[in-house]
Amino acid sequence: MQEVFKGIPMISYEGRESQNPLAFKHYNPEEMIGDKSMREHLRFSVAVWHTFTGKGIDPFGSATVARAWDKYPQAMDQAKARMEAAFEFFAKLGVPYFCFHDRDIAPEGGSLAETNKNLLAITDYIKELMQGGKVKLLWGTANLFAHPRFVHGAATSPNADVFAYAAAQVKKAMEVTLGLGGENYVFWGGREGYETLLNTDMELEVDNLARFFRMAVDYAKEIGFSGQLLIEPKPKEPTKHQYDFDVASVLAFLRKYGLDKDFKVNIEANHATLAGHTFQHELHYARINGVLGSVDANQGDELLGWDTDQFPTNLYSTTLAMYEILKNGGLHKGGLNFDAKARRGSFTDRDLFEAHIAGMDAFAIGLKAAYKLLKSGVLEKMVEARYSSYRQGIGQKIRAGNADFRDLEEYALTQGDIRNESGQQETLESILNQYILQA
Amino acid sequence: MQEVFKGIPMISYEGRESQNPLAFKHYNPEEMIGDKSMREHLRFSVAVWHTFTGKGIDPFGSATVARAWDKYPQAMDQAKARMEAAFEFFAKLGVPYFCFHDRDIAPEGGSLAETNKNLLAITDYIKELMQGGKVKLLWGTANLFAHPRFVHGAATSPNADVFAYAAAQVKKAMEVTLGLGGENYVFWGGREGYETLLNTDMELEVDNLARFFRMAVDYAKEIGFSGQLLIEPKPKEPTKHQYDFDVASVLAFLRKYGLDKDFKVNIEANHATLAGHTFQHELHYARINGVLGSVDANQGDELLGWDTDQFPTNLYSTTLAMYEILKNGGLHKGGLNFDAKARRGSFTDRDLFEAHIAGMDAFAIGLKAAYKLLKSGVLEKMVEARYSSYRQGIGQKIRAGNADFRDLEEYALTQGDIRNESGQQETLESILNQYILQA
Amino acid sequence: MQEVFKGIPMISYEGRESQNPLAFKHYNPEEMIGDKSMREHLRFSVAVWHTFTGKGIDPFGSATVARAWDKYPQAMDQAKARMEAAFEFFAKLGVPYFCFHDRDIAPEGGSLAETNKNLLAITDYIKELMQGGKVKLLWGTANLFAHPRFVHGAATSPNADVFAYAAAQVKKAMEVTLGLGGENYVFWGGREGYETLLNTDMELEVDNLARFFRMAVDYAKEIGFSGQLLIEPKPKEPTKHQYDFDVASVLAFLRKYGLDKDFKVNIEANHATLAGHTFQHELHYARINGVLGSVDANQGDELLGWDTDQFPTNLYSTTLAMYEILKNGGLHKGGLNFDAKARRGSFTDRDLFEAHIAGMDAFAIGLKAAYKLLKSGVLEKMVEARYSSYRQGIGQKIRAGNADFRDLEEYALTQGDIRNESGQQETLESILNQYILQA
Amino acid sequence: MQEVFKGIPMISYEGRESQNPLAFKHYNPEEMIGDKSMREHLRFSVAVWHTFTGKGIDPFGSATVARAWDKYPQAMDQAKARMEAAFEFFAKLGVPYFCFHDRDIAPEGGSLAETNKNLLAITDYIKELMQGGKVKLLWGTANLFAHPRFVHGAATSPNADVFAYAAAQVKKAMEVTLGLGGENYVFWGGREGYETLLNTDMELEVDNLARFFRMAVDYAKEIGFSGQLLIEPKPKEPTKHQYDFDVASVLAFLRKYGLDKDFKVNIEANHATLAGHTFQHELHYARINGVLGSVDANQGDELLGWDTDQFPTNLYSTTLAMYEILKNGGLHKGGLNFDAKARRGSFTDRDLFEAHIAGMDAFAIGLKAAYKLLKSGVLEKMVEARYSSYRQGIGQKIRAGNADFRDLEEYALTQGDIRNESGQQETLESILNQYILQA
Repeated sequence: MQEVFKGIPMISYEGRESQNPLAFKHYNPEEMIGDKSMREHLRFSVAVWHTFTGKGIDPFGSATVARAWDKYPQAMDQAKARMEAAFEFFAKLGVPYFCFHDRDIAPEGGSLAETNKNLLAITDYIKELMQGGKVKLLWGTANLFAHPRFVHGAATSPNADVFAYAAAQVKKAMEVTLGLGGENYVFWGGREGYETLLNTDMELEVDNLARFFRMAVDYAKEIGFSGQLLIEPKPKEPTKHQYDFDVASVLAFLRKYGLDKDFKVNIEANHATLAGHTFQHELHYARINGVLGSVDANQGDELLGWDTDQFPTNLYSTTLAMYEILKNGGLHKGGLNFDAKARRGSFTDRDLFEAHIAGMDAFAIGLKAAYKLLKSGVLEKMVEARYSSYRQGIGQKIRAGNADFRDLEEYALTQGDIRNESGQQETLESILNQYILQA
Repeated sequence: MQEVFKGIPMISYEGRESQNPLAFKHYNPEEMIGDKSMREHLRFSVAVWHTFTGKGIDPFGSATVARAWDKYPQAMDQAKARMEAAFEFFAKLGVPYFCFHDRDIAPEGGSLAETNKNLLAITDYIKELMQGGKVKLLWGTANLFAHPRFVHGAATSPNADVFAYAAAQVKKAMEVTLGLGGENYVFWGGREGYETLLNTDMELEVDNLARFFRMAVDYAKEIGFSGQLLIEPKPKEPTKHQYDFDVASVLAFLRKYGLDKDFKVNIEANHATLAGHTFQHELHYARINGVLGSVDANQGDELLGWDTDQFPTNLYSTTLAMYEILKNGGLHKGGLNFDAKARRGSFTDRDLFEAHIAGMDAFAIGLKAAYKLLKSGVLEKMVEARYSSYRQGIGQKIRAGNADFRDLEEYALTQGDIRNESGQQETLESILNQYILQA
Repeated sequence: MQEVFKGIPMISYEGRESQNPLAFKHYNPEEMIGDKSMREHLRFSVAVWHTFTGKGIDPFGSATVARAWDKYPQAMDQAKARMEAAFEFFAKLGVPYFCFHDRDIAPEGGSLAETNKNLLAITDYIKELMQGGKVKLLWGTANLFAHPRFVHGAATSPNADVFAYAAAQVKKAMEVTLGLGGENYVFWGGREGYETLLNTDMELEVDNLARFFRMAVDYAKEIGFSGQLLIEPKPKEPTKHQYDFDVASVLAFLRKYGLDKDFKVNIEANHATLAGHTFQHELHYARINGVLGSVDANQGDELLGWDTDQFPTNLYSTTLAMYEILKNGGLHKGGLNFDAKARRGSFTDRDLFEAHIAGMDAFAIGLKAAYKLLKSGVLEKMVEARYSSYRQGIGQKIRAGNADFRDLEEYALTQGDIRNESGQQETLESILNQYILQA
Repeated sequence: MQEVFKGIPMISYEGRESQNPLAFKHYNPEEMIGDKSMREHLRFSVAVWHTFTGKGIDPFGSATVARAWDKYPQAMDQAKARMEAAFEFFAKLGVPYFCFHDRDIAPEGGSLAETNKNLLAITDYIKELMQGGKVKLLWGTANLFAHPRFVHGAATSPNADVFAYAAAQVKKAMEVTLGLGGENYVFWGGREGYETLLNTDMELEVDNLARFFRMAVDYAKEIGFSGQLLIEPKPKEPTKHQYDFDVASVLAFLRKYGLDKDFKVNIEANHATLAGHTFQHELHYARINGVLGSVDANQGDELLGWDTDQFPTNLYSTTLAMYEILKNGGLHKGGLNFDAKARRGSFTDRDLFEAHIAGMDAFAIGLKAAYKLLKSGVLEKMVEARYSSYRQGIGQKIRAGNADFRDLEEYALTQGDIRNESGQQETLESILNQYILQA
């Protein structure tokens, strides 16, 4: 196999004083943070779509990116060469995981049968590339949004033929994911929503979505796929409104259809902010609802209204994300997948590496800051004191379910003025700064 | 009782050619639209807070509004005079309903006991004013956000004393609502959320919110309140993040705690848009989930990021709202409550009337347009054709639960290229224009 | 020449009762509104890019649209066939104008010389198609954003070779526009902005932009182009920040560099809303600054944060736009150009026609409503009364420049409480509704 | 004078290891950063309004804050006690500057004459408090938005009496500012905008605003005020649209009326973000236009749509702000004024101190990071290389004004494919992280 990223060394840890853009300044995979290494805490994953099929296209401009594997005229040759390059990239970067959509790795053929054949051929090749076990599959998924057949949705298409096609496609993608040892399977319903309510039967569409998910659960059991099934919320784009708007919308849906034991969520930072939530909010809310499955690590620009999928470099975002993840007992089967693309103006091979390094360093800093923060207990002690009234007296009765409105009225009538304590937001924000600076 | 709004006549229907700003140009309460009169369809309600306690204050400016009842130095005298004026207003405007928070109608006293006494005294007075039965109570609610004791929340306060106080307050507000024949009781959790996650135990807070709602359900049963219990979603403001973010968040919550049979939602237009949804979306989603309870009729400015609570004059908004309401079989126990305030610069008594007339006319037009639209079946026929593939063949099998991934793959493998139909959005928007213009 | 849009008739006016989606219900080109026909008032233009080169691609999906001219394997044959179809479309729709970017009409060649040759060949062909004079060129422009050479900007590129290339391209586009009798030339600086300030010399970039515009002014004079030069503001997308953010930004720039006599603006509805302004605001502000040049007629979705470029169907938007345009004494050399694309799900040839008809009817209604509104003088009388204090006494002195702070203090010290009048916003909004309904 | 903030010590620098929330961990006023001390670089100022008149009121809640000076029943006594407390606060915090609106420091009387008397009495008292010279007045301003007389604007009111009153008020505020040695005078036109265009004569309003500013310039000269005159942009809130939308809008206005030599801008972080710009953007744009006058140091929440005026703790924001300020050669007569309020839940006296400490530390870190960044030249070298093509060959000709479209076309026709360099955004963001962490 020919080296593609010539001149790019194995990326190693050089530490924070290093000026070398092709070295980690904070991410030291072997360094122990508590009882786990950084590698085990962070479980980084590279996304095939952005990193290897992305071209630097935007709605107003054509491709800025040329990659070595573009030279092959045949789609299958290109696909193979792309995966070879990908594994060279994974190795040089030292990431333990990758993720893909079915159509990222293999081209669509003239028929579904031929498409499946292409997919299996590439999957076999990926199996070879995975030998040695250094790089594993975090999750697989099916692309049910790019092809024009999905113009009006996939599982929520008004066209039953499209539903059937989508089912067939997910079936195969689940098989492939299982075959490659994938630890999760992800559903992002990019077109499962509507453009206008004027032409939409939302009730039927959402019922159909539930039917689709039920079939997926059944099929996963049938084939013995024991990984997590994950739904990835996003509020809008490409549709005007996507049914999996945010974690709460997904939970409302899962609970309605009795699917809440079968799915967790894959939370993307930029999708959170498009829904009007912070990244931390979505992680926290998922965590306390027991559905924090995996993370798409990126960031948006809160002054822009579309999914910019930038590489995560904001240390507030990474620190607070890692704080939630540590409180979750870690990512378990999930990981931190870079669903992130280098900017259109960052079009070189070097940029691919440097962008990932920037993101990995940012999360390494976040991990260190969050770990120290949690170990210090500074926030936990504040919270414990703040809610202490619920561990005694009337508060304890409330929590125990031993009080009703009559009891509480009786209690309230005997109390004088109520005294509240300051929430101390500014001081807490300043403390957070200290922990980030000391990371 | 002295007339307060001198010079304002009984508002009557003069019809669309009228130039008289103190007459209805579209709202004709007796006019039959299908088998119900406009009055019965629209069930308009005036909100005591904006219309009678609002002062034209904004975050940068003090009161611009002076009302006749301000002259009374004693709070209780003022409260009585305010309610007298309110009933004069209801009568002149011809609205069948009103709504209030406990603290809108009666002042807080030096203790909870005294506050309750004030409340009961005013309630008795309102009962007198309601005699004759022309005006009924759509819903009551408790103000659990304005007093500084609620600075960190009410049912979700970190302080159990505040929880108890809120419970006592809701208990009394439910009693008062029942006593006045209220048809609904509303919960808007203006401070049930957080300012920063750094000091927040969201899990305990949300659990406590569920405990609070459970107690409310129990108490309603105990006292024989058979009206609807309604939760009003809002995403933010005054808090950074409110737990009842949108209808989906409320449903996720209710379903988690087994409260979904006990509550419906009260949907406000401006709260919908602050959450990133259209008003129609929230109504539609609530409707197909069986929880469309009542409506706070207003509108926001989508280029502004706060709750402007403007009087609803946008005919797209009112037409599509009425379309959803008609498909819901009407508002049932709910109503169209003007949770709307005249702009700060519209500070006269006349403005109070003209603003309500503007809103009532806009909903009357919306009702007429929506009724014609529905009767024409133009959208329904389009939708029926669009989803027809689910009433036969593979689509029917999918809906009946008789297909799994294997069946669908088998089917998909035999199909050629899939043919989709246009969604025709532009044409549908143009049709909507025709129906509005012909209203 | 072969008919391409088979089955599509000449679109004619059938009037508002018509159910025919392929007829105008409001746009009656010959109908006189005041002293001009609708055609002369509205000066509709079709944009070659969206209508004839748009493919229904979005950031998550590939082309949904297939057009008859796609069948030609040679780019130049395709380009010719596309223009033939375009002129068939213009004729069937009865629009008097069209607009293009240089690269919409002719393909890029292997060198600039070859590209120019292609452009001139197609231009010659367009000249033939324009014979008869039914369809004229509203404006031409150069596409300085799609090709990867413009990745970092055109006139504001950090690369002087790109500046030179852009200059050469605009030179040719201006020649071509002149050659085809274009009445305006437009500059939209899609990439004239930045992605991050960390790598940007904004001062040099903006100075260079001014140099570029100065050269364009000089060249226009040199070749005798007497049309309007127009800058089209947009705040962002594709860049993080575009220098021509809104009309005010453009004016600040033009006035700084002494270019304010040389340029007017081309205002796009959706660009206005992305900048946080209403469409009416931008038109109004441009009008009172004497720079309202032309209009890109479309609409955005205010709950979405990207440029949706939807066909304009919102009657508030079209009425208030036409109100500003009538107050401007009309569009003069400008027009209403549909910089609008049928939704990705509206992918048929019929949709192309129906979408334009929807937009044309919406503007026809807007014209009729605005004309009546203006003729009634209802708003003007209100405004005249509202500001009457500036036509007498101290107000007159202020306007005449005959008062200073000392005079005004002296005056103010003698006044008692100041009495303001209501702004009557709700009533004015209701009046606007009446005029739209009566259109 | 009695100590008011009992138990609060003089705040001193203890360094980053300190756990003491009542100590600076980064702000060390005497520490030299280059050739100036931190105190001289940062020129911190406390705002009387938020810090001493703010009450923790929000649109849904009443005051949460009680201060020692509230106990005085007479407004003038309260005003004096407030200023005594303020000077104790300034001294304990060690800030060199303060700022006020006229109505913050002295109550409105029954007439303008009485109001002026109140103002002068308090001003005299402040002069006494300022003796010793430790605390100086950064700027004064007039509150032309809170009183109901300004409901429709001040200089842009439709009522000439209001214009006159506003003029009288600014005259006095300028005199007072001069009397106290103020280094700047600020204009924030909170109501200089519109609520609806339907009732607005924008042209007259903006002309009047220019007349007002011209009078202010003349009066400043007349009385010998040599400080900077500053306009503070804000896009909206309380109005729907404010004329001083952003720095560009202000410049367009100033240049139109020939006032651009007379005014600079006072940039507020949260106002920038409400206008869709980053804080850095507004600072940078003002800097290269020579109008960066002073800074209102705070931060907003980009997921909320109103002016939250939070204390600045975001280190990206403070670092990039200080980077622009250092490139501006410092703040000159301007300063960093905390136009920031402790959150409504941070209602104690301690919170007042801790919030300012949080902000001061955040800017101290920002200063250190920015200084190192600038000294390293890492960004400057990148930028220099990136634009190097403009220092030679065709680029040099362009900059020198020695090229026209013909020259550039000739040049472009001879060039082959253009080669661009990567913009390296991700790497630059990672470098920024290194400098912040090393601050």
